Amino acid sequence: MTLPAEHRQVLIASLPADRLQTSNFEVRMAPIPVPGEGEVLCRTVAITIGAGQRAGLQGSASYAGAPEAGRVMGGTGVAEVVSAGVGALRTGDLVWGQTGWQEYSVMRAKDLTVVDPSVSAADHLGVLGLNGVTAYFGVTEIGRVQSGETFVVSAAAGSVGHVAGQVAKALGARVVGIAGSDEKAAMLVDVLGFDVGLNRKSADFRNDFRAATPNRIDVYFDNTGGELLESALFRMNQYGRVVCCGVASQYDTSTPGPGPRGVPGLLVNNRVRMEGFLVFDFEQRYAEARAQLSAWMSAGRLRALTADYVGLDSAPQAFVDLLAGVTSGTPIVQVGST
Amino acid sequence: MTLPAEHRQVLIASLPADRLQTSNFEVRMAPIPVPGEGEVLCRTVAITIGAGQRAGLQGSASYAGAPEAGRVMGGTGVAEVVSAGVGALRTGDLVWGQTGWQEYSVMRAKDLTVVDPSVSAADHLGVLGLNGVTAYFGVTEIGRVQSGETFVVSAAAGSVGHVAGQVAKALGARVVGIAGSDEKAAMLVDVLGFDVGLNRKSADFRNDFRAATPNRIDVYFDNTGGELLESALFRMNQYGRVVCCGVASQYDTSTPGPGPRGVPGLLVNNRVRMEGFLVFDFEQRYAEARAQLSAWMSAGRLRALTADYVGLDSAPQAFVDLLAGVTSGTPIVQVGST
Repeated sequence: MTLPAEHRQVLIASLPADRLQTSNFEVRMAPIPVPGEGEVLCRTVAITIGAGQRAGLQGSASYAGAPEAGRVMGGTGVAEVVSAGVGALRTGDLVWGQTGWQEYSVMRAKDLTVVDPSVSAADHLGVLGLNGVTAYFGVTEIGRVQSGETFVVSAAAGSVGHVAGQVAKALGARVVGIAGSDEKAAMLVDVLGFDVGLNRKSADFRNDFRAATPNRIDVYFDNTGGELLESALFRMNQYGRVVCCGVASQYDTSTPGPGPRGVPGLLVNNRVRMEGFLVFDFEQRYAEARAQLSAWMSAGRLRALTADYVGLDSAPQAFVDLLAGVTSGTPIVQVGST
Repeated sequence: MTLPAEHRQVLIASLPADRLQTSNFEVRMAPIPVPGEGEVLCRTVAITIGAGQRAGLQGSASYAGAPEAGRVMGGTGVAEVVSAGVGALRTGDLVWGQTGWQEYSVMRAKDLTVVDPSVSAADHLGVLGLNGVTAYFGVTEIGRVQSGETFVVSAAAGSVGHVAGQVAKALGARVVGIAGSDEKAAMLVDVLGFDVGLNRKSADFRNDFRAATPNRIDVYFDNTGGELLESALFRMNQYGRVVCCGVASQYDTSTPGPGPRGVPGLLVNNRVRMEGFLVFDFEQRYAEARAQLSAWMSAGRLRALTADYVGLDSAPQAFVDLLAGVTSGTPIVQVGST
C-alpha cells in the first residue's frame, strides 16, 4: 500500500466560550507521521465521540484531560496498522485506540487492542466499545439492578443510555427511559423494547414521570445531572442507587447550574447510595462485558444504535449534534474504508 | 413506691415557623397513664435529643415522623419500670425506649430494651445509645475507613460527630474535625485526641481546611450538608466515600438551601460514593457496636461528651441550644433520679 504524502487532521481552533460550534474546529493537512521505537502508524477507519469529551474543552479538570487550541482533537477510533508490526502486532491488524480526529496516527503498540475484523467498526466503537462497556458495568456493578426493580435512565437514546436500558431489561428490570423528544421516547419502546419512554421536554413530564414510576425508582442511571437528577432523587425508593455516569446537562455551557436540591437530606431519609464511576476502573474486566453484550446481541436482546457520519470533516458537526441531542445512539464518523 | 396523681409533660405548642424557640413548647400536668395489656408504666430517668428531631417539626416527610401541635414531644429516654412486669420485664428494671418528653410513660414491653444499671443513663443515651451506634456503623460500614486514610467529620463536637471521630481514630485514620467555634476546635484535639480541629466560622476556614487535608479526604462523615458538604466534595480523593448521616445545616430553617455544586460531576470524575443511612438498618447488630464502643471506653480510647441539663422543663432549652450549636456532646436531660 502506498501512503499519501499528507493527511487530514481536525484541530481545536478555539476552546468554546459557551455552546460548542463547528467553528471551534478547523481542518488542516499535515505530513504523515513516522513511527518511532515501539510505535506503529495506523490509518483511521472510524472514530466515535462521547459527550464527556466536551468537559475537557472547558479547560477545567476532567478525566478527559485538558485539550487546548492548536492541538489535534482527541478521540477513540478503530484503525488499521499500516507500518511494520511491533511485537505481536502485525501490518493489516484492525486495532482500537486513541487515534484522535485524523486520518493517520502514530500510537504505541502497547496501547492498542487488536479487534475482530468480522465485527463492524461501529460495533467496536459503540455497543462493544467504551460506551457499551460503561453501560454494562454501570448497571451491573454500580446500580446492581435486580429482576423486578424499576430502572430509570436519562439520555436514554444516547450512546451509553440506550445500552444501559437494554442491559437492565435483559436482567429483568422494568425500564423507563428519558429522552429529549417524543420521537426518541417512542423509539425507546418501539425499537429497543423499553417499558416506557418519556420526553423530558413535554409539558406533562413531571406527571408522566410519576405515572411511569408507580413503585418509585430502585436504580437511576444518570447521564445528565441537573434537573433530571433532582427529579429522580425525589422518586427514589429506600435503598435506591443512583449511578453517576455523566453530566450531559452541564457539559455544553460555561455556567454549570446549582447542585440538586435534596442532597444530602433525601439520601439520608431513603438510604440512597449515589456513586460515580469511570469505566477505566473495570479495565481488567472489559472482555467479560464484551462477551456478555455480544451474547445478548446474538440472541436479539440488545440492539446497537448509531448516528452515522461520513468523512473526517463531519466530526465537528457530529459533536455539535451529539451535545444538542439531535441524534440517537453512538456517533460514528467513518473516516476511511475498512 | 407511691405514684403521684399527676406528672409533667412537654407538649409541642406550635410548629416552628423558622428557627426553633422554647416558646414552641409548653409544660402541662397530666394524669399518670394506666398501662394496658402488654404494656408497662415507666418513670423517666433521663432523655436525650437529636438534631434530626428538628426535621420532624418541619411538618414534612422525615424518618422522625411528623409531630403536630398539642402532642407530647417524642424522644428517646432511659426509664425505670414502675408497674407490674410483663413477660421477662420486671418492676424496677432500667429500660431504654421512646419515653417522650414526660415524667411517666406507658410503653409496650416488647418495644423496650433492658439496660445495665451499672452504666449511667447518660452513657446509655449517648455513646452507647443511638448516637454512638450511628457513629460506629457510619464509620465502619458506610465510610469503611482504613488505617492511614484521612477522615473528616462535620459537627465534630456533636453527639454523633465526637464519637465518629474517635472511632475513626481508633481504627488508625488521620482525623480532622470541623466544629462551630475555636473553643470546640481546640477541645477536639486536646480532649478527644483528633489530629486537627477546625472552626468553620473562622475567616481562614477555607485555607485551614485545605492545609488540614494535604492528602485530600478519603472519608467525609457529613452531619451538616450545605456548604461544608460542598467544600468537602471538592477535596475528596479518588474512591472517596461521603457518609450522609445528618443535615444539621438544614434542620432549623424554613428555607433549605440549594444542593451542593459539583454533584454529580465530582462524583463521576473522582469515583466518589455518597451514601445515606439510618442506624435502624443495623438494629440486628447494635450489641456488636455497643460491645466495641464499651471496650474502647474501658481502654481509654473513647471519651463520651455530654451536655447536661437538669429537669424536664429544661428540655426545650436543650433542644434550642443543640440546634444553635451552643453545646458539645450528647444533650442529656436528667428528668428523675435513678
